[in-house]
Amino acid sequence: MSQHTRALTEFLAGLTYEQIPEPVLARTEDLFLDWLGSALASAGSHPIPLFERYAQKMGPADGPARILVNGQSSSAYFAALVNAASSHLVEQDDLHNSSVLHPATVVFPAALAAAQDLGKSGRELLVASVAGYEAGIRIGEFLGRSHYRIFHTTATVGALAAAVAVGKLMDFDQQQFTHLLGSAGTQAAGLWEFLRDAADSKQLHTAKAAADGLLAAYLTAEGLTGAQNILEGEQGMAAGMSRDAEPSKLSDRLGSRWALAETSFKFHASCRHTHPAADALLALMQREGLGADDIASVTTRVHQGAIDVLGRVTVPQTVHQAKFSMGTVLGLIALYGKAGLTEFHSHALSDPRVGEFREKVSMTLDPEVDGTYPARWLGRVEVTTADGRTLHGAIDEPKGDPGNTLSRAELEDKFRRLVQFSVARSDDEAGALIDTVWRLRELQRLDALA
Amino acid sequence: MSQHTRALTEFLAGLTYEQIPEPVLARTEDLFLDWLGSALASAGSHPIPLFERYAQKMGPADGPARILVNGQSSSAYFAALVNAASSHLVEQDDLHNSSVLHPATVVFPAALAAAQDLGKSGRELLVASVAGYEAGIRIGEFLGRSHYRIFHTTATVGALAAAVAVGKLMDFDQQQFTHLLGSAGTQAAGLWEFLRDAADSKQLHTAKAAADGLLAAYLTAEGLTGAQNILEGEQGMAAGMSRDAEPSKLSDRLGSRWALAETSFKFHASCRHTHPAADALLALMQREGLGADDIASVTTRVHQGAIDVLGRVTVPQTVHQAKFSMGTVLGLIALYGKAGLTEFHSHALSDPRVGEFREKVSMTLDPEVDGTYPARWLGRVEVTTADGRTLHGAIDEPKGDPGNTLSRAELEDKFRRLVQFSVARSDDEAGALIDTVWRLRELQRLDALA
Repeated sequence: MSQHTRALTEFLAGLTYEQIPEPVLARTEDLFLDWLGSALASAGSHPIPLFERYAQKMGPADGPARILVNGQSSSAYFAALVNAASSHLVEQDDLHNSSVLHPATVVFPAALAAAQDLGKSGRELLVASVAGYEAGIRIGEFLGRSHYRIFHTTATVGALAAAVAVGKLMDFDQQQFTHLLGSAGTQAAGLWEFLRDAADSKQLHTAKAAADGLLAAYLTAEGLTGAQNILEGEQGMAAGMSRDAEPSKLSDRLGSRWALAETSFKFHASCRHTHPAADALLALMQREGLGADDIASVTTRVHQGAIDVLGRVTVPQTVHQAKFSMGTVLGLIALYGKAGLTEFHSHALSDPRVGEFREKVSMTLDPEVDGTYPARWLGRVEVTTADGRTLHGAIDEPKGDPGNTLSRAELEDKFRRLVQFSVARSDDEAGALIDTVWRLRELQRLDALA
Repeated sequence: MSQHTRALTEFLAGLTYEQIPEPVLARTEDLFLDWLGSALASAGSHPIPLFERYAQKMGPADGPARILVNGQSSSAYFAALVNAASSHLVEQDDLHNSSVLHPATVVFPAALAAAQDLGKSGRELLVASVAGYEAGIRIGEFLGRSHYRIFHTTATVGALAAAVAVGKLMDFDQQQFTHLLGSAGTQAAGLWEFLRDAADSKQLHTAKAAADGLLAAYLTAEGLTGAQNILEGEQGMAAGMSRDAEPSKLSDRLGSRWALAETSFKFHASCRHTHPAADALLALMQREGLGADDIASVTTRVHQGAIDVLGRVTVPQTVHQAKFSMGTVLGLIALYGKAGLTEFHSHALSDPRVGEFREKVSMTLDPEVDGTYPARWLGRVEVTTADGRTLHGAIDEPKGDPGNTLSRAELEDKFRRLVQFSVARSDDEAGALIDTVWRLRELQRLDALA
């Protein structure tokens, strides 16, 4: 085993509640509420009921863990599966920039399901979640940009992040964490190919990542052994799925850098790659007092990853695809001033003005933007006005990023809007859930989170 | 979608029982019995009980599908999971040479579990299994040798082969098979890294491949969509996991070439990469009348894949590792004339003469052997005798290969020995299972297979 994998597994085994700074614990609660809203928002939306039916068919009729969208009980495996599918549907879950990992949608479903199964407390859930974030983010950074060009990092690395969270709930020692990474890493899968067909794999990816990670942890607890060097070995993850892996990323400032706190909340309900340009356009329009009709064309200056992920969608056919259409997102921003769930579902495909605006938008690779990515997500747009002027818009930190984060009031507001969208819970129930999450570290059991 | 993926999915959708030649149906029954023996042989052996406990913890207490090693009932998902782990433990399951895929251990567990769940007949099971073999073998050939250097093809391609078998039981049409390949392919995972630590991932790989493939099929039946070009697309399996993919392999002589019938039975209880040399050494020793003590050294002339897979094991620490030790296998052959399960468990680690013989064995890359691999697995050994002679042994088709296959009597004998090894069933029960398998195409239900 390399020094970096050893350092990471030693950190994970040794991590205690007391070591975690108060702002990191508070941010974990913020992220948990944000995740819960994303999961509940998808109730009733395709393809989530498919996963619910699968759990009913293959799983037990009852169990210690809860499926959020329908309130049913099941075993931890199926709760993790369905909840992880649910929380990655409406594109409102969190993102860590430099790893391009959505940690919440894989870490929290596995951690909550296992914590309910094992009778763990809120504090134990928080420590386990921090462990999952810290490991997952570093493994994502380790695998690098070449990995993300083909593989959906939240799917591949997600299995390891979820596994680590469950392993922490099980009090794994350093050797068990090594076996765990081996068994989770050898299950790591998820390809971007589905994107060009707007297929349902994104939810399958997060569902499987959380469930596979949980499976790895439960089997490790039983005594299953795994490869000792799955990340860096000659036939390991980096060897098979990356060309620019950086081993030192695995142990980057463990215990002093809290990568969890670098995670961004999503403000717009679209693919994160559209957010910098959306914020830059909005800032420019507000500054110059422009309306949508005043704009003749928009050139967004972006990083290569945005072109890779968004470049496939020309004319979106579904709401989900619209969230990956730069032109559609900027059309909603220009016409409605925001691109939330309601705007996507009510206007993205049906308002012909959005389609017209979409045709005015292009993407071009910008060396400066690309050079700072993925550490920073700079927003740069060039607008040609109807009256012939060329204007520039720029933001250096999108809304929701750590330096421009959401307050607890804004998070509560977002949570209530997400729950209202699906009507998965009443307003009163939403309020009770908010109260429960803000008291997370006092809870002895997590049965109330359902 | 490319013409090759389209041709493959059209073939799968259109395949009928009547189209399959009688010798292929009979060979499918042979392969099924051979698989059943491999699954039962592992009862009680680590790590199979771990998977059984996982199924008990996460699955329902009862269900339509059967777990072979313990006779318990569960849902199809967990039966596929445990049975697929079971059948890849004792290294006695089948292998298709040019794809380097072990089809039985992934196709049959998924197909049998789903057939029991869906109330299908023996004929339907046979057609589904043929579909799984034909698709899996071609996809393995398509991904090529570069894939196998890092990825365990039986794990990655196994998910697609298992999915296809279950999809055929569900009477999928061409479009559903396309979605199915998308959802199975994006779950494809399994790295060789575990091999150098003799870790338990091999069973995890087959367990997950069968279970993931089955999951993909059940979700596709519910309406889950998948990438339309998961095999050949720019962000698909070949793009991410191969450097020498050949798309034409996907549709190679569909309907006229029956790849299933090219599958080899394992005669020795070791990694298939050791078999050509083992047979060549045995032939040479019999021809020359040599005993183990007459041999000073053995140089095995092998293909690169053998060095990649076997080269990691120097001094085996476990029986499983011994099956990947060329020197140990040849030591058993030289000392006992065979390398079956009993020889491995009774002598491979404990007989010091085996260890001494192991030290006399080396591997070297042979251009001729490497050039014909993986279509042919040539066995070439060079022996230096204690009295200073240099002798050459060669076989062109290992025992168990299609041109040197096992008779039904030999298959029954192998099955009985496998079942006796674990005592999973009595001799009478073993005989009844043999009778059931030979009547497979007359069975209306598959409940008797348990």
